[in-house]
Amino acid sequence: MTDRRDLAAMLHPLLRSLIAAELRVLQPHGISMWGYIVLLALDDGPVRTQANLAEAIGADKTRIIATLDELQRDGLISRVPDPADRRARLLSITQEGSDRRRAAQADIQANEERILATLPGEDRQAFLRAVQALSALPHEDIVG
Amino acid sequence: MTDRRDLAAMLHPLLRSLIAAELRVLQPHGISMWGYIVLLALDDGPVRTQANLAEAIGADKTRIIATLDELQRDGLISRVPDPADRRARLLSITQEGSDRRRAAQADIQANEERILATLPGEDRQAFLRAVQALSALPHEDIVG
Repeated sequence: MTDRRDLAAMLHPLLRSLIAAELRVLQPHGISMWGYIVLLALDDGPVRTQANLAEAIGADKTRIIATLDELQRDGLISRVPDPADRRARLLSITQEGSDRRRAAQADIQANEERILATLPGEDRQAFLRAVQALSALPHEDIVG
Repeated sequence: MTDRRDLAAMLHPLLRSLIAAELRVLQPHGISMWGYIVLLALDDGPVRTQANLAEAIGADKTRIIATLDELQRDGLISRVPDPADRRARLLSITQEGSDRRRAAQADIQANEERILATLPGEDRQAFLRAVQALSALPHEDIVG
């Protein structure tokens, strides 16, 4: 066994700090954390029904209603009846929402690059490759 | 800006899966997650007062009482009056507690090594170096 701390014990405080950093960066953009997560999800394409969106982002269905109201009020998303099923609502990002998402993400990743710059160059690239690969593993493969 | 997802968005599901993996591994050892965290903390040396321990591990003071009762009942920790201040309690790990911690951690890290083995060898080493370095950064340096 290598003499190191457990991965979760190291990643837990790191993630907590990264989330605090995102909150600080998002604030001047006028977007909440859930608002940002919704904009990221919708920028991949429209989503049919609020329930599907909530499931896709791992949010409580009732919890995101206020977030969606706020995003719509600010003109960042639109909710229109789905042409294929007029009882369902189609959620889409607006051009302004997409621009806002891109600007916020640029600032978030600029802060991340500042943090990553404390690592040696080759470790930085390997770390990003590893995080991308590990985060793509199915939950069941990690739980074992 | 690099074309990648935000660090927190990648680390969040990874951490959730790693915690689920720890819970699965800890179960046959008869240790709860908080019990394991307490054993890790006390294996570095005794701690004076339950309040200090709670603060050191970031737990709610009332929350860990049941955990401490359980660990003491199982003979994994001892709570004795502090010789230097008999009103205070000195919390220590027992030999059995230390053995149990080591056995559980060996299984946790064996599972982690199985996961890390999916990465190319040089990325694996660089990832561990990077996680150790980043998790040691002060919270304020990450928040920016």
